[in-house]
Amino acid sequence: QKLKIGLIPADGIGQEVIPAARAAIEALGSEIPKPEFFDLEAGFEVFANSGEALPEDTVEALKECDCALFGAVSSPVKKVTGYSSPIVALRKRLDLYANVRPVISVAANPEDKPDVDLVVVRENTECLYVKQETMSAGEHGKEARATRLITERASHRIGKMAFEIALGRPRQQVTIIHKSNVLSVTDGLFRDTVRAIPRAVEGGRYDNVKLEEQIVDSAVYRLFREPEIYDVMVAPNLYGDIISDAAAALVGSLGLVPSVNAGDNFVMGEPVHGSAPDIAGRGIANPLASIRSAALMLRHLGYAAPADKLDRAVNEVIREGQILTPDLGGKSKTGEVLDAVLKRL
Amino acid sequence: QKLKIGLIPADGIGQEVIPAARAAIEALGSEIPKPEFFDLEAGFEVFANSGEALPEDTVEALKECDCALFGAVSSPVKKVTGYSSPIVALRKRLDLYANVRPVISVAANPEDKPDVDLVVVRENTECLYVKQETMSAGEHGKEARATRLITERASHRIGKMAFEIALGRPRQQVTIIHKSNVLSVTDGLFRDTVRAIPRAVEGGRYDNVKLEEQIVDSAVYRLFREPEIYDVMVAPNLYGDIISDAAAALVGSLGLVPSVNAGDNFVMGEPVHGSAPDIAGRGIANPLASIRSAALMLRHLGYAAPADKLDRAVNEVIREGQILTPDLGGKSKTGEVLDAVLKRL
Ligand SMILES: CC(C)[C@H](C(=O)O)[C@@H](O)C(=O)O
Ligand SMILES: CC(C)[C@H](C(=O)O)[C@@H](O)C(=O)O
Repeated sequence: QKLKIGLIPADGIGQEVIPAARAAIEALGSEIPKPEFFDLEAGFEVFANSGEALPEDTVEALKECDCALFGAVSSPVKKVTGYSSPIVALRKRLDLYANVRPVISVAANPEDKPDVDLVVVRENTECLYVKQETMSAGEHGKEARATRLITERASHRIGKMAFEIALGRPRQQVTIIHKSNVLSVTDGLFRDTVRAIPRAVEGGRYDNVKLEEQIVDSAVYRLFREPEIYDVMVAPNLYGDIISDAAAALVGSLGLVPSVNAGDNFVMGEPVHGSAPDIAGRGIANPLASIRSAALMLRHLGYAAPADKLDRAVNEVIREGQILTPDLGGKSKTGEVLDAVLKRL
Repeated sequence: QKLKIGLIPADGIGQEVIPAARAAIEALGSEIPKPEFFDLEAGFEVFANSGEALPEDTVEALKECDCALFGAVSSPVKKVTGYSSPIVALRKRLDLYANVRPVISVAANPEDKPDVDLVVVRENTECLYVKQETMSAGEHGKEARATRLITERASHRIGKMAFEIALGRPRQQVTIIHKSNVLSVTDGLFRDTVRAIPRAVEGGRYDNVKLEEQIVDSAVYRLFREPEIYDVMVAPNLYGDIISDAAAALVGSLGLVPSVNAGDNFVMGEPVHGSAPDIAGRGIANPLASIRSAALMLRHLGYAAPADKLDRAVNEVIREGQILTPDLGGKSKTGEVLDAVLKRL
């Protein structure tokens, strides 16, 4: 039996870090089913060439895969007619309703507790990301409107994912992020739905999970001041987007933070960093977020031991502090960091 | 001639910090027209007693004032029918379209440049704050929708405010915060409208202002990593809300960050912190954000010298570091901090 993995490097440094993640997976040898890789296209460059940011072939091929790794997409600096982010589309097309983003600092001593150790569980299919926008002419000029959709169904399933993740962590705490003091209907529904989950699930499965909540603005403030108060943060799409970048700032670099886009039947790893056009093509992109995303993807598929092995190797490289890319203050190249990880596997 | 100032302490520590701001204004003596204060009500407590969070009397009285100071409002922990945030309503009723939030760290040496010195200029009347929300029954449960409104008119006037503020600062830089890679219509309109301002304004008034932009998630990330890249940040309502709290984390405490809600004909000072129910009534709330809000309000009315004087006194107290409230690691009471400021006036 093989493990079919779709690879979608897409734009910018995605082209440099996804091959590194592939090499790390290959180095696992017989600890996982033999991987078979499928090179797939998406992104702004493909759009510029073909008019399609997310070719139908890519979506069809992914449906035949067990999992995938996605790189990053470039956002056009000017508005481009017909272009729309392929990652947002992909999340919806494959119903990858949860964007799971663990943010963990690496303690100097492997025995020590990390200062930051939290998971952002971001709803991945709705909120303002439904992209229902209209433009009209008002009395005083143009008026644009966007719809923010929050459903009970999506809030319930993302909430359940958050509770499940909390069960596997020592703290067992879920913090709901919302702004129901202003958005009493939409964020009120999100909050109430997540709150109701422990009672709705049979057998008292979540009875020991501590449930907290925070208004989004003050959540970001406290994230910087006292990150230790958080364990699992569950948030509607846009708040989750902002919070996970904010949390990434706490651990030194976006180049370290992995994610998976997870649905009930498919999982796609994706580094949280973007396409970084300023450094693309120079061989200095940090491959660690992508390697960690591969680990997260494998863990999600049930391969915990090889995932741990990848994570341990990455943490050792960070801890030793000798072979790091410039985003972490080092001078090493993508390939050198990858080699350092491979050596420690 | 008198300076008519409405005082709306509202909830929680608002009741403790607004009287401190009043005392600081009174201590300015003849440097400003003799202040006349009007005690006005709003907030969750008033709502609990009278059914109205923003009594009509308060709005009418404010219309007779030259300016106002607002404390903070408590958000009910449970959903309360009929309650809606009075501060959001007040901003709209008085058309206070700009929420101006300077975030400045206090350097150890008064001659040194502060590490953080930026102004968040937040649109204050629309975006998701229009509170147009609906709930309906879908196939898989409840569905809630909110409208996000972005108009050319509001984007233009907030953009102009940002450019004007930038003109008065050494850096003269404006950074537009948006998410037009996802919200191409609404945030596209915001971005394009602000971008067009230098060309739309006659006389090349803004020709020397440097215009930058940042996607909101990466803006928050970079705010933490390299706050020095920002000077004036202009943002739609919700992003501005989150960004100003994030920036506050950089300067040590929300208890230090002031704001004004400004329209063409009225200005209302307001500390950025909330009602802090956990410490309310204990006499340990930090009055400095409110005193700085009073200074900002006076500056907006054209009283720059007395505003500077208040700011200098506040900065001295922070710099000396002896008399500080617990949010800044001190042990002093609200009244002691106020006295320390008054002594340095
Ligand atoms: C590129 C963009 C559409 C995307 C998002 O907003 O989801 C990115 O910021 C992310 O966090 O994955
Ligand atoms: C209390 C709340 C409605 C308010 C807002 O979101 O505007 C507050 O967070 C603020 O920043 O003034």
